[in-house]
Amino acid sequence: MSALENVLNELKKISYLRGAEALLSWDQETYMPEGAGDARSNQIAHISTLLHNTLVGETMSKNLGELVDLGSGKIRDESLPAREQRRLKEIWRDYHHAAALPSEFVEEVSKHASRSQQLWVKARQANDFSMFQPSLEKTVEYKHREIEYLGKLDTPYDTLLDEFEPHMTSAKVTELFSEIRSRLVPLIQDITAVKDRVDNSILKKDYPIEQQWDFGMSMLKAMGFDMVYGRQDKSAHPFTTSTHPTDVRVTTRLMANDLKSALLSTLHEGGHGLYEQGLPGEEADNPFGEAISLGIHESQSRLWENLVGLSRPFWAFAYPKLQEYFPESLTNVPEDDFYKAMNKVEPSLIRVEADEATYNLHIMVRYEIEKLLINENYPVAKLPELWNDKMEEYLGIRPDKDANGVLQDVHWSFGAIGYFPTYTLGNLYSAMWFNQAQQEIRDLNGKMAQGDLLPLRDWLREKIHRHGRSKTADELVREITGEELSAKPFLDYLEKKYQGIYGL
Amino acid sequence: MSALENVLNELKKISYLRGAEALLSWDQETYMPEGAGDARSNQIAHISTLLHNTLVGETMSKNLGELVDLGSGKIRDESLPAREQRRLKEIWRDYHHAAALPSEFVEEVSKHASRSQQLWVKARQANDFSMFQPSLEKTVEYKHREIEYLGKLDTPYDTLLDEFEPHMTSAKVTELFSEIRSRLVPLIQDITAVKDRVDNSILKKDYPIEQQWDFGMSMLKAMGFDMVYGRQDKSAHPFTTSTHPTDVRVTTRLMANDLKSALLSTLHEGGHGLYEQGLPGEEADNPFGEAISLGIHESQSRLWENLVGLSRPFWAFAYPKLQEYFPESLTNVPEDDFYKAMNKVEPSLIRVEADEATYNLHIMVRYEIEKLLINENYPVAKLPELWNDKMEEYLGIRPDKDANGVLQDVHWSFGAIGYFPTYTLGNLYSAMWFNQAQQEIRDLNGKMAQGDLLPLRDWLREKIHRHGRSKTADELVREITGEELSAKPFLDYLEKKYQGIYGL
Repeated sequence: MSALENVLNELKKISYLRGAEALLSWDQETYMPEGAGDARSNQIAHISTLLHNTLVGETMSKNLGELVDLGSGKIRDESLPAREQRRLKEIWRDYHHAAALPSEFVEEVSKHASRSQQLWVKARQANDFSMFQPSLEKTVEYKHREIEYLGKLDTPYDTLLDEFEPHMTSAKVTELFSEIRSRLVPLIQDITAVKDRVDNSILKKDYPIEQQWDFGMSMLKAMGFDMVYGRQDKSAHPFTTSTHPTDVRVTTRLMANDLKSALLSTLHEGGHGLYEQGLPGEEADNPFGEAISLGIHESQSRLWENLVGLSRPFWAFAYPKLQEYFPESLTNVPEDDFYKAMNKVEPSLIRVEADEATYNLHIMVRYEIEKLLINENYPVAKLPELWNDKMEEYLGIRPDKDANGVLQDVHWSFGAIGYFPTYTLGNLYSAMWFNQAQQEIRDLNGKMAQGDLLPLRDWLREKIHRHGRSKTADELVREITGEELSAKPFLDYLEKKYQGIYGL
Repeated sequence: MSALENVLNELKKISYLRGAEALLSWDQETYMPEGAGDARSNQIAHISTLLHNTLVGETMSKNLGELVDLGSGKIRDESLPAREQRRLKEIWRDYHHAAALPSEFVEEVSKHASRSQQLWVKARQANDFSMFQPSLEKTVEYKHREIEYLGKLDTPYDTLLDEFEPHMTSAKVTELFSEIRSRLVPLIQDITAVKDRVDNSILKKDYPIEQQWDFGMSMLKAMGFDMVYGRQDKSAHPFTTSTHPTDVRVTTRLMANDLKSALLSTLHEGGHGLYEQGLPGEEADNPFGEAISLGIHESQSRLWENLVGLSRPFWAFAYPKLQEYFPESLTNVPEDDFYKAMNKVEPSLIRVEADEATYNLHIMVRYEIEKLLINENYPVAKLPELWNDKMEEYLGIRPDKDANGVLQDVHWSFGAIGYFPTYTLGNLYSAMWFNQAQQEIRDLNGKMAQGDLLPLRDWLREKIHRHGRSKTADELVREITGEELSAKPFLDYLEKKYQGIYGL
């Protein structure tokens, strides 16, 4: 076999192991008996070790090294077609990242992350940041070592950001947030001043979960999520996973007194799921078969959740159906009231419950804190106060306790620093895609109002999904929209929509 | 680390991989989207390869070789405690078996098995043995090569039998079947002569599957199957699997017009499941944490399915509950009529639908044919006729077509020759266990009639489950019953029970 064939063969093994790991994790959150947790951790840890060993093992190093300079990533044979050079570059990117971190370091960090996450659960329950503080301090130390191993980019924080959103810089993110802040903070203030104009109490009535499940499934199918190659189940926290593009699994969480939550989570995870199902099957075992970044992934979920799922055209189609599922609660509720209820904007303390407008201010709080932590050695002990100050500054409300403030998210506990910005990037991308789709799909709103969502899915598949990682996020944005990533389309969308709903 | 620690460490990896493989397979039969079959096959095949490579790899060979002569299995340090010597012997047994087969051979056979199974499905559908014949001939050839690699025991067939039922010989099995034949064939003939004395049409009424599921779950819990460490799901063919003793999964199949099938399959798989849950957790990653043999495993399922689930004491407790689940069909059916219906004996063509008495004659047919195939080079082409002749001789009925004859079972298609006898061995063991339990558990029948099944589960756990593979089947039989394995207890049980039911 040639060096390339050997490399691709190793990647196949990695792909199979990732599939197994994904199933073990999916099962842990869905059907695993509660007493099996320890055994499952051992199984997942061993598969992770095998994954790592295969990626940086002798076979891979030797053969990839014949094709690429392992230190710099320079392709040795410049006469290769551009696409093949790109593929090698992406393979090298993964290799280099894995090989840069010594395996003892990875193991140490992984054990710390596991302990830290358990501590975080207890600290949040006890509403006691001091229980978690030493552990988070240790995490920050580990992050600095990680940055040393991986190499510093523009700033130390950029190295972390780059892991979740390749090629994104904190300079760009800061610029985007500055635009967001300048337009979104006043918009939220204007809305808050007239907040009683929208009443969402109708969404908190009694909605039996069986019907919620059935309605959600019908929407998932309407989006074009293919049940031959996927499924939906229930879990404590909704998520999407894939063992292969032919096996994509989304989950949802149902609550009898909350119509909005499960419905939007189904559309959200369904958007992630469509991306996974749309990745090119013929590339399934190499980077070109993978998603570009967390931000691009999030753009797919947010597009379906918000730009579709909170739009008038969608509900023109879906609301009469929803009324059939819940005649007692909804028969006498006009569509317009329902639409407004779904779109109520209200500053709140908890990110995962936030509406589409205030959501990005929650992210901005976290982003600014992360940068201070990593680039400025801001003391961990002072995070609770910093958090509360920023919430007050941007959202006009101050957390009553740390459990509803700095302790609310799991991410930092397992070392995911640099992850949060991808949520907002997803929102920004999604608005750019949706604008473009409106221009390219004839009468998209009319089609949506008829329940014909497949043209949109197919457009996303054609423009985004089928390319996998063969393009960078930047390239994708330019090719699809002809422009650079900007917050303007998203902010325009929010202002226009909410000025209408709130009569501003 | 010492050589032993290294060996145990490799076994841990094997155990984790087996857990992953078990979950991938379980999911394939329960929740996997139908389009994911190819990807799943690749994932399972890769995990199997890793399993094999770990078991016979350099680390294992080197370290096990320091403790055991890899050729003969002789323990090097005879001063080791007997239990540790036994453990090493069992580890070597697995190692030796895996190392004896060249990996190219294993791969070739595995590919053949996969194609052969697909051919078998088509041949059975088409009722055309000639479609399957060449493939089965090839399987027999592979079996001969396998026997060469593994080493011939008393006869070539004994080598195959030993893989499924370690240390069992065909001489012993033949002796047992001769006893079974001499007493069971006449019993079946006597019953057939008065077959109208029992009517089981009541079991074929309308039994909604939701209630069947709920009743089955309540029985599974009554047996002491622990839902903290296990679960039940639905699949096309019922089975039991385990990713770890803390994660044991049984499945069942429900049919609305068949009350007996799902109920007995739940008790059957529940029996397998109790064995898996009762294996010693502290030995989970070495052979002492595994089941002894297929026959001993089957003794657990058959004990709960037949000796408990088809007994008067069990139904004294369970029937009033069953009536509550199905008042329309059962309110006016006396318990005695129901008990007899469940115990109707009738020669039939299909093994998996056979009652507990005729079942073993189905196995005898297969056992005799397998011995002829392997030891006497009996021509595969003549199997259909041989099958039909033996069915007529032992059961008094002749298959109308090969789909209901020689083509009915999947086993031979994937190379499982030597497996069938373990079903009957399971029945024989189960009767010996149950006799002994009746002597050792005070008023077992009275307890069962009260629904108190835990003393029986705990007795099985104490006597059988907790020992894992630290004893051989022979030792277990002698230690529990003070006797050698014999067909007498099972035949005594059948004669007494069915002479009563049929008034012979």
